[in-house]
Amino acid sequence: MFVIGERINGMFKDVNKAIRERDKSVIQDLARRQEDAGANALDVNVGVSDNPIDSMEWLVNAVGEVSKLSLAIDTTKPDVMEKGLQTSKSPTIINSISGDKVKLDIYIPMARKYNAGIIALTTNEKGIPQNADMRTEIAATIVSRYQEAGMDLNSLYIDSVILPVNVAQDNAKEVLEAIKQCKIISDPPPKTILGLSNVSQKCLNRSLVNRVFLAMAISCGLDAAILDPTDKELMDTMITGELLMNKFIYCDDYLEAYHKK
Amino acid sequence: MFVIGERINGMFKDVNKAIRERDKSVIQDLARRQEDAGANALDVNVGVSDNPIDSMEWLVNAVGEVSKLSLAIDTTKPDVMEKGLQTSKSPTIINSISGDKVKLDIYIPMARKYNAGIIALTTNEKGIPQNADMRTEIAATIVSRYQEAGMDLNSLYIDSVILPVNVAQDNAKEVLEAIKQCKIISDPPPKTILGLSNVSQKCLNRSLVNRVFLAMAISCGLDAAILDPTDKELMDTMITGELLMNKFIYCDDYLEAYHKK
Repeated sequence: MFVIGERINGMFKDVNKAIRERDKSVIQDLARRQEDAGANALDVNVGVSDNPIDSMEWLVNAVGEVSKLSLAIDTTKPDVMEKGLQTSKSPTIINSISGDKVKLDIYIPMARKYNAGIIALTTNEKGIPQNADMRTEIAATIVSRYQEAGMDLNSLYIDSVILPVNVAQDNAKEVLEAIKQCKIISDPPPKTILGLSNVSQKCLNRSLVNRVFLAMAISCGLDAAILDPTDKELMDTMITGELLMNKFIYCDDYLEAYHKK
Repeated sequence: MFVIGERINGMFKDVNKAIRERDKSVIQDLARRQEDAGANALDVNVGVSDNPIDSMEWLVNAVGEVSKLSLAIDTTKPDVMEKGLQTSKSPTIINSISGDKVKLDIYIPMARKYNAGIIALTTNEKGIPQNADMRTEIAATIVSRYQEAGMDLNSLYIDSVILPVNVAQDNAKEVLEAIKQCKIISDPPPKTILGLSNVSQKCLNRSLVNRVFLAMAISCGLDAAILDPTDKELMDTMITGELLMNKFIYCDDYLEAYHKK
């Protein structure tokens, strides 16, 4: 599974403070710790910032000094996105766009220009769909536009948008079904991804809810997740899920072996 | 989820010794602890015994003195099975039979006589099938025979037989698929069950492997499992899985609330 570390995000207090104070040490420690824990890429999000373009440039450079991992540039603002893509010396992923025509017209050319991947949410002008079929319909539109633009589907990640279980409890089943349906949109199919932690927003047992939903999603064919790789129990769940789906060969110390790959 | 506690089984050393020495205290402690931990039924298996019929009678009585839970009478011997069914004052489940014609002809009439449920494995004369489709084919045969005999499908549990991940690693995906397929055999469908711990036989991280596979199986529609309810992390996983599948309403202390049902 392709793991994108979620921790370098201005919504976390430590990161917000570090960005405001331009304190690289906090950011670089989070980058190293996530990479050591098994992240394959790092999300970078400046959060609320007075000058988000400068903050993104500073943040991408701070991370790039200590890690060669791909960066998922995480912002809703096209100019902040472009600054992140321009600045990074590592491969980049646009995180994220919706299935609106307007967004696709802005970001697919940007992805091509900077040779970036795209994480696309199965949402559009009408918001977040209620069920799996509507998510798949939007995903199919995105895939179609992506292919029409001559882009390689291997760089497209479809995020079926999991809502918190405490506010939209019927949502998890639909998202699991949408992940499965995504696999039959095209051949080869787009990759599937989840912003995992959203499922447990404001729940008491966040790590447990994240772990159980991740295991379920892996059994439905999930390819990637944005999550906290420093949550060791969560990573152990991910690795065990991949084992059970026969993605690598069993050995007694498969948890340790996975990290040596 | 219907949880059958697995611990009163002569393959465990403590239980084997207690049966040989006719020491009720060990058995009754296990019965109480499993019921307190959330078991809905208790498996009773005398293991290797010089006199399994007497041992089964003693074991069923020992458990019945402290628990009113249903008992899953767990033996491959028809005479030992009948003694267990005869002896129990609580509802019973036959655990387990294969899809062989010979077995069905013995046990379906026995289930009718004692008003017992049946756990039926998707195996036959040829052994354990390699893939989901063959499991489903056997399950369909069992369902058909069960209905022909005028039995209520609500008392039939289909066990798709999970093999240990360290010896048959491609098996887990097939079993998950078989659980899903089982739901379309008939309307209403038979219930699905797993002897969960088998997935982690002789693995180092048994509880972790059990937890992850249980979460996956719940997302495929698993109705029941034979497992160790005294493994609190496993039970928390099960409860969280049921929450995510929208089987009961979220509240912050849903783990505690589940046990008060």
